[in-house]
Amino acid sequence: MIVLYHCVSARSFRPLWMLEELGARSGKDYELRMLPFPPRILQRSYLEINPLGTIPYLIDGETRMTESAATCQYLAHRCDPDNARGLALRPDEPGFGAWLNWLHHGEATLTFPQTIVLRYRYFEPDERKLPQAAEDYARWFLARLRGIDAVLQQHDYLCADRFTAADVSVGYALMLAGEVRLSEHFPPAVAAYWERLQQREGYRRALAEQHAAALAQGVSPSPSPTGAPPARR
Amino acid sequence: MIVLYHCVSARSFRPLWMLEELGARSGKDYELRMLPFPPRILQRSYLEINPLGTIPYLIDGETRMTESAATCQYLAHRCDPDNARGLALRPDEPGFGAWLNWLHHGEATLTFPQTIVLRYRYFEPDERKLPQAAEDYARWFLARLRGIDAVLQQHDYLCADRFTAADVSVGYALMLAGEVRLSEHFPPAVAAYWERLQQREGYRRALAEQHAAALAQGVSPSPSPTGAPPARR
Repeated sequence: MIVLYHCVSARSFRPLWMLEELGARSGKDYELRMLPFPPRILQRSYLEINPLGTIPYLIDGETRMTESAATCQYLAHRCDPDNARGLALRPDEPGFGAWLNWLHHGEATLTFPQTIVLRYRYFEPDERKLPQAAEDYARWFLARLRGIDAVLQQHDYLCADRFTAADVSVGYALMLAGEVRLSEHFPPAVAAYWERLQQREGYRRALAEQHAAALAQGVSPSPSPTGAPPARR
Repeated sequence: MIVLYHCVSARSFRPLWMLEELGARSGKDYELRMLPFPPRILQRSYLEINPLGTIPYLIDGETRMTESAATCQYLAHRCDPDNARGLALRPDEPGFGAWLNWLHHGEATLTFPQTIVLRYRYFEPDERKLPQAAEDYARWFLARLRGIDAVLQQHDYLCADRFTAADVSVGYALMLAGEVRLSEHFPPAVAAYWERLQQREGYRRALAEQHAAALAQGVSPSPSPTGAPPARR
């Protein structure tokens, strides 16, 4: 069984969302192990499992993964090797390059800058807050939305005119933007896309699974890292 | 022909290095178009080509890519579909998950934090420099090296016991660490690995190609973004 270490609505939401989109079921195909956020401070014993202390941590047989966008590609192949659900693009399929690009873009370009905002606007004690850095990377993030906005003005999804793992990668960045309170600045096509993604059965099931697992495992089910209201359920 | 927009020793070095490892040749299989760094300030007309203003920008037929780690995976399939050079791992190969993980890790976890150091320690005018942020992310980067260090104490390469695109992705992060002056803090196994990578014919050819292209196209061949000495040639 696949084991996924997860904090509510953190990056590890990507593999959780992927698993649900792929038809995998909690308790049968995968086990969700909930941690308080941030685990490296609130649950020190986790460092014996993942020395980096980061989430996600995905265990599947001999495989260990820590990069959430990489898990999206991995799980597409692992859980659906014939790609019946179409969440992956094959190398010979037009759009393969775009698919890989958006998979990486969701994390490296659209999530990392938001973690700078989170850290210096919300997490750090007052004497270490850096309003300039938070503002710089809030602007940086919003400027980078131009790339997906151009695509979403023409298409419902990022590539291949269907929902794929790339939409999970980028979709999570938009989910996080709600927590960081940047989503009110989404361009219209991006806002409409994020509304569409939230209607998906797989997304809703992932939200429900993390909620149930948090309650069952004694972790707060809505510890939004910003103190902002949790993402809509 | 593949077109690659590139700044000397910037992230676009990843696809350049990959192309050379794959046996592609400048002027025949790919064209290197050099830009001063940062292009969005020093060559405004570039925004008409890539509205994000970022590099790399890779054009291959209908494909357009901006994420350097994603280009590594793309080029492996594009230039060597039978994987004769072994730079990719197939989904059914043990280590596929690890390979994807390190591909992403090189950029999202090991490069992005260094760009925070670059920005707030070197690029910004004095009144906007943020020593705390630079120090925070220098530490953050060095702490994250623990993950690859654990692997490199046991293996010469990151996965599958051979050189792959994952080593290009992570290798570039180590190259950048030289420019950011963080490489003196590498753990021994990481330092030895980076020495090994620099001995590779593909790496040396990539350095030589960017040098020649910069001179031919009137761009400074060693504008290290930190003002530090350029990477060893």
